Amino acid sequence: MKKLLLPTKTYRLNGRLWLETEDGRFLGIGRLELLQHIAELGSISKAAQAMGMSYKRAWDLVSSMNSQAATPLVSTQTGGAHGGGAVVTAAGHEAMEEFRAVQARFQEFMRTETSLLHG
Amino acid sequence: MKKLLLPTKTYRLNGRLWLETEDGRFLGIGRLELLQHIAELGSISKAAQAMGMSYKRAWDLVSSMNSQAATPLVSTQTGGAHGGGAVVTAAGHEAMEEFRAVQARFQEFMRTETSLLHG
Repeated sequence: MKKLLLPTKTYRLNGRLWLETEDGRFLGIGRLELLQHIAELGSISKAAQAMGMSYKRAWDLVSSMNSQAATPLVSTQTGGAHGGGAVVTAAGHEAMEEFRAVQARFQEFMRTETSLLHG
Repeated sequence: MKKLLLPTKTYRLNGRLWLETEDGRFLGIGRLELLQHIAELGSISKAAQAMGMSYKRAWDLVSSMNSQAATPLVSTQTGGAHGGGAVVTAAGHEAMEEFRAVQARFQEFMRTETSLLHG
């Protein structure tokens, strides 16, 4: 590839990775970020707000994740406007950890491939 | 991850990979497909048509690829409505081959990661 590359530009492999089922997306970077915000803020609506996402969109993402997991990743308490608090379950934390590990290996893959471009 | 997965569903890692510079995308699956069609059909407008893409869009993609490569990936002849013929250059064929190879390693990475999910 090297001779195809301009010395004046910086080339890198970039990409996106997600886990899916026949029902569609299950876990990806955006969903991981949503889980992180819910874990920090204890609320789906606050997490949505922090990400500039509608409450409906955040709720749909949580619902999609929960319905595709053996154990819900987020547990919600009813009550109040936009529901009560929300907690990332142990299963949710495990899913986050596992996806972060896959994502780290993907980053490593892209770094390696980027260095091969110049070989 | 295994205990988070429902036995009733099929889980797999999926993703997209592309090569970019500070100017944006340089090569990806869609651009590779466009190059393949241009190589087969000898024309940007026929390639665009085959992909259900506007001529302008196809031209912009070709222009973006050519301007980010040391040697143009597509060579065009002027003349007639929507220009004359277009040829994928030797550099273009090399870029296609290299990107296909990276893509194949990415598919292998995703297959491996998918099998690890169940470990």
